[in-house]
Amino acid sequence: MSVLPSGFKFSGITCGIKASGALDLALITTDKPSVVAGVYTQNVVRAASIDWNRSITPSSDFRAVLINSGNANACTGQQGVQDNQQLAQAVADQIGATAEQVLVLSTGVIGQLMPMEKFESGITDVVAQSQNSRDGFNLASRAIMTTDKGPKTIDQELQIDGQPIRLAGMAKGAGMIGPNMATMLAIMITDAKLNSAHAQALLATAADQSFNRISVEGHTSTNDALLLISTGESGVEISSDSQLAQFGAKLNDACIELAKQIPSDGEGASHLVTIQVTGAPSKQDADQVARTIAASALVKTAITGADPNWGRIVSAAGYSGAAMDVGNTDLLINGHCVFQAGQPIVFDERLVSQSMAENFETRIELKIGSGPSSAMHWTSDLTVEYVKFNSEYTT
Amino acid sequence: MSVLPSGFKFSGITCGIKASGALDLALITTDKPSVVAGVYTQNVVRAASIDWNRSITPSSDFRAVLINSGNANACTGQQGVQDNQQLAQAVADQIGATAEQVLVLSTGVIGQLMPMEKFESGITDVVAQSQNSRDGFNLASRAIMTTDKGPKTIDQELQIDGQPIRLAGMAKGAGMIGPNMATMLAIMITDAKLNSAHAQALLATAADQSFNRISVEGHTSTNDALLLISTGESGVEISSDSQLAQFGAKLNDACIELAKQIPSDGEGASHLVTIQVTGAPSKQDADQVARTIAASALVKTAITGADPNWGRIVSAAGYSGAAMDVGNTDLLINGHCVFQAGQPIVFDERLVSQSMAENFETRIELKIGSGPSSAMHWTSDLTVEYVKFNSEYTT
Repeated sequence: MSVLPSGFKFSGITCGIKASGALDLALITTDKPSVVAGVYTQNVVRAASIDWNRSITPSSDFRAVLINSGNANACTGQQGVQDNQQLAQAVADQIGATAEQVLVLSTGVIGQLMPMEKFESGITDVVAQSQNSRDGFNLASRAIMTTDKGPKTIDQELQIDGQPIRLAGMAKGAGMIGPNMATMLAIMITDAKLNSAHAQALLATAADQSFNRISVEGHTSTNDALLLISTGESGVEISSDSQLAQFGAKLNDACIELAKQIPSDGEGASHLVTIQVTGAPSKQDADQVARTIAASALVKTAITGADPNWGRIVSAAGYSGAAMDVGNTDLLINGHCVFQAGQPIVFDERLVSQSMAENFETRIELKIGSGPSSAMHWTSDLTVEYVKFNSEYTT
Repeated sequence: MSVLPSGFKFSGITCGIKASGALDLALITTDKPSVVAGVYTQNVVRAASIDWNRSITPSSDFRAVLINSGNANACTGQQGVQDNQQLAQAVADQIGATAEQVLVLSTGVIGQLMPMEKFESGITDVVAQSQNSRDGFNLASRAIMTTDKGPKTIDQELQIDGQPIRLAGMAKGAGMIGPNMATMLAIMITDAKLNSAHAQALLATAADQSFNRISVEGHTSTNDALLLISTGESGVEISSDSQLAQFGAKLNDACIELAKQIPSDGEGASHLVTIQVTGAPSKQDADQVARTIAASALVKTAITGADPNWGRIVSAAGYSGAAMDVGNTDLLINGHCVFQAGQPIVFDERLVSQSMAENFETRIELKIGSGPSSAMHWTSDLTVEYVKFNSEYTT
């Protein structure tokens, strides 16, 4: 476990939004005005918080982000907009900032008004309990959970031009996960020194390599958000092309590692499915094939059953709409070739099935021609438990 | 039950392709050269039969279509192409036609070579048993089944300009069903007198209103095909604009009625879900919203659980990519308004849930603005039985 980035405070408390009494309100503050960048859901049905955050990021004047679980404040009309504004203002009043320095992230049930009376004491408490410690970070990472089985975090000490910086993150999400954005909240924090334009550009690139490449059931939510907050407290400047490239690569890797924790914890998931498409004529074709395979219920159920049913994978690629050279298509499952040059080949079904049954990760490698482009995607399999969970979830 | 169209013979036998011994080979022949039109899968990974049929339809020289279940002859390379050609030739030899007068439809497992030795006596038998009778029609409609719980047929006596014609059809499909084409085989037959260009145009229109608007899990197969065969034996000419419009409308209705039988029998389905989107700025927007809702595992599992979880429906519409006027969006479930003008409204959740639990059909009516365009889609819900069935299916 690394040292956390400098200049941050964290807290996570029970505010009473969740009937269960579990942690449901988190706060991350910075000691000084800091840089923040954001990437948000592409769903046109957006939570009030998303519009609010979008209007005030990127910025170099960030002070706090309040995150609640248990209520998404989405599809709540004008009242939802007012409630969101009031939350930002309440945090601002307590920490001596303006509302425009405070972001809000919400996740939970759609279509119910926020229990504003509960936030009154909740915000006082969550500010009072803020601490610059691993405990605070851990409490915050738990308070943002909904159907997650556990917290999802990452922390790293890195070197840029030989100088140490710290990069950490927390995420939540296990269902309603589709690309653009994957349905989730994630907050990356660093003490590297970035300006807001660079932070925004690097974050958008990282999102495209990580959180936009994961799915559980492909349902893009109303509340997805990914933030990057940088205090600059390390004093290590990230501004030259070389520094930006170094930091960008580290940020990509960290985001991929954090993002993969989401389908690994997909509702009811018994496998993480890693899909790599190569040989495509364009990046877009590669992407489309990977996403279509990831979205196929027939592929996902075959993996649940440890069935190397390659016909479902190849046919999903075929209807993706992407350019595909069928006669030059190869497929490997967990490293075993099962389809070559567009023809079925003899393989040991029992052996491949066994490797699928024994490993949590199933790797699908599909070459769809001899083009230069490739794409990755990570998804969950589809289990009886997923269906039970989502058909028994109460409105 | 109506009289079947004149000029056709039907048969359905056990050829031994299915290990179960169930019926697996069907034949439909016409007494004289007839008109045939076809609409096929848009999957680029296509069965050999699809390429063959595509190359010889539309035509006015049709004599037979051989349909086998148990093996899709897809992803079988050059051998599959040769096998398919050999089947057409074998039927042609037996009925005194050329191979180019014989279509082939195959459905079943992907990636296994056809058991050609079984077809040798099978084709002799299926030709020998051809009969112009309801029994023959019923046997054929059962022989094309794979995971279907029962046969899917329709038959009607209609009037065009006051003169009687007959229109009938059979279809199969319960899984791997997605639009473009929905994964299924369907054959419409009539004794109305049509030329092949008109037949092709009317069939394409009907497909767009029916078989291209159904899904089970959205997986477009390698073998989808819809045929329209017309013997002209009624002597009733369909050639004027008015006759084409009358017949086209009847064909649309019949295709919709037959198509809806597919998601009603979707693998593990406990509900047929009918989705009507209105108020869209364009037909394409309406379509996109309807399809995205139909593809959402979260919407489908909510319906399985009789949960009027409108947030999942509205958010699916939101990420469809279609233009949507959120503030002017209304949603009805089984006729009960649950979301109005972009705002949650108070409704009796127990009552709506009860209506979902008690009825096999769940109706979703979503108005996404005040535009002129609308679209329909029919799908199955997603149940524990679907997942069990498809994770236990053996390659």
